[in-house]
Amino acid sequence: MSEQSKNKIGKAVTRRAMLGAGAAAGAAFALGSGAEAAPQAMPESWDEEVDVIIVGTGFAGLAAAIEATKAGASVALLEKMRTPGGNSIISGGVIAAAGSPLQAEEGIEDSVQTLIDDMMKAGLNLNHPELVRIIAEKSVETVQWTIDELGVEYRGLAHMGGHAVPRSYALAAGSGSGIVVPQLDKLKEMGVEPRTRTLMKHLLRDPDGRVKGVIVHEKYRHPDLDSGTPKSIKARKAVIMATGGFGNDPSFRKLQDPRLGGELDTTNHPGATAQPLREAMNIGCTLVQPSWIQLGPWTSPDERGFGYAPHFVQGVAASYGLWVDTQTGKRFVNELADRKTRADAILAAGNKCIAFSDADGYVKGSTGRPTDNLDKMKEAGVLLEYPSLEEMAAAHNIPLDALKETIETFNAGVDAGEDSEMGRYMSDKVGKIGTAPFYVVRLSPKVHHTMGGCAINEKAEAIDVVSGEPIVGLYVVGEAAGGVHGASRLGSCAYADCLTFGRIAGQNAAAVESWS
Amino acid sequence: MSEQSKNKIGKAVTRRAMLGAGAAAGAAFALGSGAEAAPQAMPESWDEEVDVIIVGTGFAGLAAAIEATKAGASVALLEKMRTPGGNSIISGGVIAAAGSPLQAEEGIEDSVQTLIDDMMKAGLNLNHPELVRIIAEKSVETVQWTIDELGVEYRGLAHMGGHAVPRSYALAAGSGSGIVVPQLDKLKEMGVEPRTRTLMKHLLRDPDGRVKGVIVHEKYRHPDLDSGTPKSIKARKAVIMATGGFGNDPSFRKLQDPRLGGELDTTNHPGATAQPLREAMNIGCTLVQPSWIQLGPWTSPDERGFGYAPHFVQGVAASYGLWVDTQTGKRFVNELADRKTRADAILAAGNKCIAFSDADGYVKGSTGRPTDNLDKMKEAGVLLEYPSLEEMAAAHNIPLDALKETIETFNAGVDAGEDSEMGRYMSDKVGKIGTAPFYVVRLSPKVHHTMGGCAINEKAEAIDVVSGEPIVGLYVVGEAAGGVHGASRLGSCAYADCLTFGRIAGQNAAAVESWS
Repeated sequence: MSEQSKNKIGKAVTRRAMLGAGAAAGAAFALGSGAEAAPQAMPESWDEEVDVIIVGTGFAGLAAAIEATKAGASVALLEKMRTPGGNSIISGGVIAAAGSPLQAEEGIEDSVQTLIDDMMKAGLNLNHPELVRIIAEKSVETVQWTIDELGVEYRGLAHMGGHAVPRSYALAAGSGSGIVVPQLDKLKEMGVEPRTRTLMKHLLRDPDGRVKGVIVHEKYRHPDLDSGTPKSIKARKAVIMATGGFGNDPSFRKLQDPRLGGELDTTNHPGATAQPLREAMNIGCTLVQPSWIQLGPWTSPDERGFGYAPHFVQGVAASYGLWVDTQTGKRFVNELADRKTRADAILAAGNKCIAFSDADGYVKGSTGRPTDNLDKMKEAGVLLEYPSLEEMAAAHNIPLDALKETIETFNAGVDAGEDSEMGRYMSDKVGKIGTAPFYVVRLSPKVHHTMGGCAINEKAEAIDVVSGEPIVGLYVVGEAAGGVHGASRLGSCAYADCLTFGRIAGQNAAAVESWS
Repeated sequence: MSEQSKNKIGKAVTRRAMLGAGAAAGAAFALGSGAEAAPQAMPESWDEEVDVIIVGTGFAGLAAAIEATKAGASVALLEKMRTPGGNSIISGGVIAAAGSPLQAEEGIEDSVQTLIDDMMKAGLNLNHPELVRIIAEKSVETVQWTIDELGVEYRGLAHMGGHAVPRSYALAAGSGSGIVVPQLDKLKEMGVEPRTRTLMKHLLRDPDGRVKGVIVHEKYRHPDLDSGTPKSIKARKAVIMATGGFGNDPSFRKLQDPRLGGELDTTNHPGATAQPLREAMNIGCTLVQPSWIQLGPWTSPDERGFGYAPHFVQGVAASYGLWVDTQTGKRFVNELADRKTRADAILAAGNKCIAFSDADGYVKGSTGRPTDNLDKMKEAGVLLEYPSLEEMAAAHNIPLDALKETIETFNAGVDAGEDSEMGRYMSDKVGKIGTAPFYVVRLSPKVHHTMGGCAINEKAEAIDVVSGEPIVGLYVVGEAAGGVHGASRLGSCAYADCLTFGRIAGQNAAAVESWS
């Protein structure tokens, strides 16, 4: 290959150049060694060109597509899976906003600074503070945008773990589809539809340092990275990577945290792999904080993936029930602590923990939710129902006396309006526990969010690993960007992050000067 | 530039290709944007060629150079600073070995598995276990190699924090110079001398995926990366990066852990920057675990850098004295815990902590050390001397009664042979505290070791970020490699790591088939 290169283009050949020849011809380029997947060069001619290429159709990618289109840019919206939405569409359905109208209605005092403090505390102060500030400052505006621009409906405020107060708008739809679907509808009106089964195989970075387009594989069959038909798309203005995290990529997870290999289940959809991140690093993006990988504390070993469990464990039991260690019958953590604190506590108890509520608690925690959740969860074998506390204790080998004492202590706190044992936030709605039947979900943390990713600045521009300066023509948003959430992300802050930075990237990308 | 490229070399140009032209001509290539430092292409002709290029002259680089030379390879040994030795030459002078002859002499039971367990525990199980095993298995062989091959002299065993037993060979020289100097002497005998002020400006990776050489800047003036004269050196067999960590690079530190910016002092020499790591990432190395950055717990705010303090704080007070919180007069951590545990504890106490010993403890902890340490430390204002416990307490605002009680409790433990309060390892040599004068060093943690770096396999080969396979022609060893120590490195394991993997890389690099 080295001889060939000399003959063809003299002294200045590189491996990017060599491989570029293959890419330009629209053909997959077979590598001799197999141990090397080199960056791609600019094609001589492009198969297609648009202003802005957006890779990924979760909250961030769709928000970027809406803003870029609105600003007059032509957009190619790429999605490698058969259906759009990524992790967003299957996520829990809550978005943080500090100082919102709903909080005002309920008399809840909150501020931008309080949200910043909560995010930094959960993140163990590893968060890039300038990014946190933007999310917090724009949080109310972002929720308002979903209402005004997309017609999104909310059913009230939720209190997510690690937040000082209830501040998370809960989607009426009960999951992220409540935003993704209106986003897709909006884009359809604007004439933009996701191109599914379209893999971003390579980012194309020019000798002048600018990212100028991508090589895609159309008709890609996940996860075969060699499947599909290669095609080059030129981005006159910019590429926006909204490609998500690597929660469902055991091999990359294990590299960054050897404890989190393939034995561990994940809440993530099958597309949440490190491939786009690997490509980004290969063209000079800066990887930050990749070994901080979050386990969701509210998942069940009795189902695969995200499942139904979080609706009950977080939505019901964390506010209106209790989490107990079955070995002791005692609570073991503040059920509204941040995710890392709770997941670590469950793991420390050998995963022998349950979340439970009584019948009253179930009703309160489920208000406004789709009414068939209970049945679905029971059918799936995830939610277990017991006619009495005694039977619940017997079924899970919980010492009954200790369990009763735990409930008595908590109930006394309900009267006093204070959780003396764990310091959990007690709203006026919380009632005493005691009305049969009792509901239980067993607890077992699963990989949920990868905090690390490409370094970005406040404009969502990717940062070059050598120069530390922005890479012209490349934005990274959502879970693909690193540094936003530090060591551990607070629940409902991904929505705010993805929508806020997605919009910022879409607006900024549309305003970039075209390179031809 | 894009037009120029089309004219010159047709469709296959890349930014690497463009920049290669400059590099090949031996001239620095000015970039238009300033925001971009692109990888370099292969020069048409090389200014020099050798079998193996070794970058860095700490323990790892020198060990690699010795082995590669011994195996018959010609070696270019590069050092960007004015003098060789990097952080190694100023380091604390202890090397871990599990199951050693010195341990046998002292009747200390130890095993490879115990060392592995200690390293994994300190690393919070984030260590890549296959790398840990190699270090532990080869630890005795490695120390023996320094004795047999280099004539290194040791003064006895030290008990380093986080190790289950005393197992660290302490250099008679009292610092890493006790190994670096014999390494340099050995290399001189073999005809290899470090080329100082020679910056590895770029790694050169060919289109075929192989690393084939470097661009250096001769007569480099640290830290001006544009200084010096560019020159290309071809590596017929391989390049070994032994370039150290980024402990003295506040901007890269801050990116990976925003708490650790420029406000914080470091024990590292000025050359410990991220520049080589950035270059490695830019040619497709895989960055792992970069946000785990270790603070040394045994440093003093009364001097800059590593200084004298650790000799006393670790060498004397951790085994023969006590560390106390001046606010309470009480101990606050097991003085022999791992570094992270102790640094976190000092920070949690607002840095208001001291390490102290009595006169007897000082003598015991200093046995075999250069005798002028005491005077030097006192002159530097780091070691403070008090004629009585009362005067020591008064000078540091320590509640005297609490301090006396702390000492009484500890002294009772000396009789019992057990530290009931903190569970510290008690050797037979530990005596009761009470003989004036008393010596004090104030405590303030400093950035000491960066655990993250390039992913490597058991052969010390660098791992490609896209393919996950080894990069032919590139080895990474020592602190530049990531994953070895997980969340936090145990003291005296860097010596074992650097020497063991340095030797492995040197042997393997010499055995690589030449590419021309």
